[in-house]
Amino acid sequence: MIGIFDSGIGGMTVARAVEQLLPGYPLIYFGDIARTPYGTKSPETIIDYSLRNTDFLLKKGASLIIIACNTASSVATDRLRQEFQVPIIEVVTPAAEKAITRTKTGRIGIIGTRATVKSDIYNRIITGRHPEFKVFSQACPLLVPLVEEGWINKRETKMIIRRYLHPLQTNQIDTLVLGCTHYPLLKELIQARIGRHVHLIDSSVEAARYLQKLLQEQPDLVQKSDEQSVEHTYYVSDLTDSAQHVAAEIFGRPMELHHV
Amino acid sequence: MIGIFDSGIGGMTVARAVEQLLPGYPLIYFGDIARTPYGTKSPETIIDYSLRNTDFLLKKGASLIIIACNTASSVATDRLRQEFQVPIIEVVTPAAEKAITRTKTGRIGIIGTRATVKSDIYNRIITGRHPEFKVFSQACPLLVPLVEEGWINKRETKMIIRRYLHPLQTNQIDTLVLGCTHYPLLKELIQARIGRHVHLIDSSVEAARYLQKLLQEQPDLVQKSDEQSVEHTYYVSDLTDSAQHVAAEIFGRPMELHHV
Repeated sequence: MIGIFDSGIGGMTVARAVEQLLPGYPLIYFGDIARTPYGTKSPETIIDYSLRNTDFLLKKGASLIIIACNTASSVATDRLRQEFQVPIIEVVTPAAEKAITRTKTGRIGIIGTRATVKSDIYNRIITGRHPEFKVFSQACPLLVPLVEEGWINKRETKMIIRRYLHPLQTNQIDTLVLGCTHYPLLKELIQARIGRHVHLIDSSVEAARYLQKLLQEQPDLVQKSDEQSVEHTYYVSDLTDSAQHVAAEIFGRPMELHHV
Repeated sequence: MIGIFDSGIGGMTVARAVEQLLPGYPLIYFGDIARTPYGTKSPETIIDYSLRNTDFLLKKGASLIIIACNTASSVATDRLRQEFQVPIIEVVTPAAEKAITRTKTGRIGIIGTRATVKSDIYNRIITGRHPEFKVFSQACPLLVPLVEEGWINKRETKMIIRRYLHPLQTNQIDTLVLGCTHYPLLKELIQARIGRHVHLIDSSVEAARYLQKLLQEQPDLVQKSDEQSVEHTYYVSDLTDSAQHVAAEIFGRPMELHHV
């Protein structure tokens, strides 16, 4: 079973991409809504929560874990790999690698939570492989609450996006990584603001593609089931109206969320 | 010792008011930054966290508890009073009572988190005593993240405040309760928008005044200490840069926060 965890519901963009690319695989999701958001918290706290989330998914039968949260991927991956024997997939490296292959000018922008940007992980991966590339990072802490409020098309959201993207435009990036699993919901606004000439990288889709490739190489990592009877189960640590609303927005259908 | 807890740092506006009104009393504060915010979470989760926070403060020697968070006051007060023998003071009733005495037209506005507004507690207290009064409530869930980002004077914050206050203006309120301990930091913007003819009630200040009166009547509830050597200790469940920044903003001085 594929186990996926996130600080809340944003990681469901990863689950949706996995459902679409790998429809025959059973999937279990855990969204830590009771302690959301992670992006404003300290590394120690994020690591502690990530250990508990992984433990929960393994006990439910997961044989592979996706950290569907850029913040947790940035600060907790090493620790999870030390603690657990199963494959741990994170959402940062696939997105960073995609950005490397797509950029023509070597000027790459990253947007994410404060914790992700502070971890400097995208910059380290990208310039570690291409020291001549320039990485420009911008923390966008208000975008998560705006998405969770469903303020996708509000004027204030557009203004806040403009404010956040302005330094990246000044730096003439040609590729922009959506380094937070909430941001695909704002993709249209971000693309319109940054300009059509900038290539957007969706970390949720790239993580799903990475898993697809891994399962082609090592099919035994997760047991496939019949596409008709495949089970996808969504657990949350708290159940709120707005969580159900955003989950339905992501999947384009009402979602059954199980409160644990 | 006076024990104060909050979902994070907003409740420090209550602690500051207590420091100013009751300078001779030892005080211990707990801000649950690791699980902030409460206002978007479910009542069960908020009650669970409130029980743990109270337990922490009592173990540290508190003899009286202030729930310095409108959300927790709205949903967890009854349960805390069942579980614990010490006096439990909440921030809703003093603010509601003040609004009752200040309104001339009987048209009162309430702004707060989604959980506070959904609990309907202000309406129940006010119309329970004055059935002829009209209470208009507005959830303002984005104001907490805006304050925590320090976006106090940004144009987008003003626009979002305008959007939230618009229905209250239409309803011609003459009194507005700042029903969230973060909102005093936005008092100027809110007053400017709603108009000088509307009386603002600060739930943080009213809770401190209520405690002052209670201690005049029952001085034995908390042991006073020497004003020079009085101890005020601030604990947090997570330590972040922005928390330290907002704490300093509230008190007008750098604050020592202890991570537990």
